Amino acid sequence: MQSSENIDLKSLVRSIPDYPKRGIIFRDITSLIAHAEGFRQSIRDLAAPYEGKDIRKIVGIEARGFIFGGAMADFLGVGFVPIRKQGKLPGDVVSQDYSLEYGTDRIEMHADAIEAGEKVVLVDDLIATGGTAAAAIELLQDVGGIVEAAAFVIDLPDLGGAQLLRDRGVNVHTLIDFEGH
Amino acid sequence: MQSSENIDLKSLVRSIPDYPKRGIIFRDITSLIAHAEGFRQSIRDLAAPYEGKDIRKIVGIEARGFIFGGAMADFLGVGFVPIRKQGKLPGDVVSQDYSLEYGTDRIEMHADAIEAGEKVVLVDDLIATGGTAAAAIELLQDVGGIVEAAAFVIDLPDLGGAQLLRDRGVNVHTLIDFEGH
Repeated sequence: MQSSENIDLKSLVRSIPDYPKRGIIFRDITSLIAHAEGFRQSIRDLAAPYEGKDIRKIVGIEARGFIFGGAMADFLGVGFVPIRKQGKLPGDVVSQDYSLEYGTDRIEMHADAIEAGEKVVLVDDLIATGGTAAAAIELLQDVGGIVEAAAFVIDLPDLGGAQLLRDRGVNVHTLIDFEGH
Repeated sequence: MQSSENIDLKSLVRSIPDYPKRGIIFRDITSLIAHAEGFRQSIRDLAAPYEGKDIRKIVGIEARGFIFGGAMADFLGVGFVPIRKQGKLPGDVVSQDYSLEYGTDRIEMHADAIEAGEKVVLVDDLIATGGTAAAAIELLQDVGGIVEAAAFVIDLPDLGGAQLLRDRGVNVHTLIDFEGH
């Protein structure tokens, strides 16, 4: 790892009130990733726990997880696997439904993206209730992947997603957290 | 730049016939990015022309452009700016419509993402007819950005997108090409 100045990543996240609806404060990572040193440090801080750990793939969740995950995979010198919304991947897929506030949604991954026994790290920009991440972990485990950890830039601990994953035996690694929603 | 073996990136792109519809051969980059050395080389080959060129931002188009663009930005040590489909960005946006085979679509970028006079490189996985890329370049130029180049992993030259951009005075840089659609 290169040494880096200790940038306050949290101060680079822009908070947008009443988005996407009234009463919600949206934590916007575009201001963090636009900042050269902030983005660079976030990738190094996300990747640091996995250097030398024989990780074979970084798995990113569409769409912001692709930004961090692609850079992490390149930094660690490993491959990248996308988990996408339904209907976006051209090959044979495995899929997993998960609950939303109203109704359900589905994520998909190429069925041949992970070989049985490969160690992988799941990445997304933010964990809230953890529904998407939990579904992604089920997909990875269903195809025989070993989920070394799930890594997120932002944790919203009051929404319980990180705890949900830990209760299922998943290592969770987050860089910064915000109270409330 | 690190030296790298000369991997045949084209051989790592999977071709899927009749996707998304009959008669189309889909060029699937997920097999390339899953390959550690292939992904690494693609990022270095994409970034190489811009090292030392005072590029301030890499701009990626949703969603596959985020994977390559995030890694390129980190490799070059610059910030990353996402261009997204309508309604996905939480802040004030500028938008641009572009034509599809039937109808139109709209892309958006945060209005404050680029400062006037900043040199940027636009990135996506593939250029076909060039409609989305041309719209993205208009967005960038409208806010005062200087588009140093547009870089794509795959060119489909028969569809004319790269030529369209060059006809508008944009430098275009592609790594591999496939004839036909």
